Amino acid sequence: MPLVRIDLAAETTEQTVSAISDVIYQAMVDVANVPEHDKFQIIYRHAKDELVYPAAGYLGVSYTPKIVFIQITWNAGRTIEVKKAFYKAIAEGIHAKTGLRKEDIWINLIDVKREDWSFGNGEMQYVPSE
Amino acid sequence: MPLVRIDLAAETTEQTVSAISDVIYQAMVDVANVPEHDKFQIIYRHAKDELVYPAAGYLGVSYTPKIVFIQITWNAGRTIEVKKAFYKAIAEGIHAKTGLRKEDIWINLIDVKREDWSFGNGEMQYVPSE
Amino acid sequence: MPLVRIDLAAETTEQTVSAISDVIYQAMVDVANVPEHDKFQIIYRHAKDELVYPAAGYLGVSYTPKIVFIQITWNAGRTIEVKKAFYKAIAEGIHAKTGLRKEDIWINLIDVKREDWSFGNGEMQYVPSE
Repeated sequence: MPLVRIDLAAETTEQTVSAISDVIYQAMVDVANVPEHDKFQIIYRHAKDELVYPAAGYLGVSYTPKIVFIQITWNAGRTIEVKKAFYKAIAEGIHAKTGLRKEDIWINLIDVKREDWSFGNGEMQYVPSE
Repeated sequence: MPLVRIDLAAETTEQTVSAISDVIYQAMVDVANVPEHDKFQIIYRHAKDELVYPAAGYLGVSYTPKIVFIQITWNAGRTIEVKKAFYKAIAEGIHAKTGLRKEDIWINLIDVKREDWSFGNGEMQYVPSE
Repeated sequence: MPLVRIDLAAETTEQTVSAISDVIYQAMVDVANVPEHDKFQIIYRHAKDELVYPAAGYLGVSYTPKIVFIQITWNAGRTIEVKKAFYKAIAEGIHAKTGLRKEDIWINLIDVKREDWSFGNGEMQYVPSE
């Protein structure tokens, strides 16, 4: 169900992109109760001036051109505690696997409803017919 | 009003891209009560490793590199039955016009409010001034 | 907090892209109570057929290939009056700085919650631990 948009620098190596993708998926399954195989992601590679962040940093966090923007659309219902653990798992996992700075891992969530998905075939899989 | 993001393989022909675009618009007008001429869409063409889906499939649906991700932001208020008919119209229409597999048509909806749109001119067209 | 996606024509000059980016940020700070330095934006450059708008226009607004799609995800709570002023500030500011037509400035907002953000470090900065 989650749709994950990952925006990163064009220079990012294929191995790093693949590791970021896997860490996000694994954090979903391990921490956020996402079903196995529910891995749908879109990667966008960007020229340097296309990833805009504050030069002065924000809330004490500083950023580099290696910033990774992650926006996840998924079903509403996860608690604040789950979301906290989810952010932590992603930033720590990506840092451990790729060496990217945890400060450069930027995440936003959008909550939607169960009827807002079709996983193919023109069907609404999460809301069965009566 | 709807904003439609369509992410697909860079190899997709221009004719197929155009047909996908037209089918989504027509399904909106025919099934989901979207006004005529309300056709705003953004196409993203991707390298193969940028469209990520589960190799094992999900919920009995299998995917190929020709997967088409469609994310639509529109006004809240449509019923589950309308959304079901909308998914069906898109998948069947795209299959009929382009030959793409219905299983490769992946859709997500995001509901927003009437005041969340400016269609140009710096105005909030859907909420007239008092 | 806001995440701003800006989709525009590949021909747009770097100066214009930069001006659009600055105007949106400044409108957020001046009109919509967004904190200073909270400037996170992603730019997407598109081939001509990737920005789809109605040839007949919509609601009396007409568009050109220089259309700029702006989608902003931010925290819920802003009033209709604030959103109106925000649209106006963006369209007028971009027109004044770049000469782009105000009709070509297209905006959509998505409201989310305070817990839906991690600005780096794997932390949920807007919801402090108890």
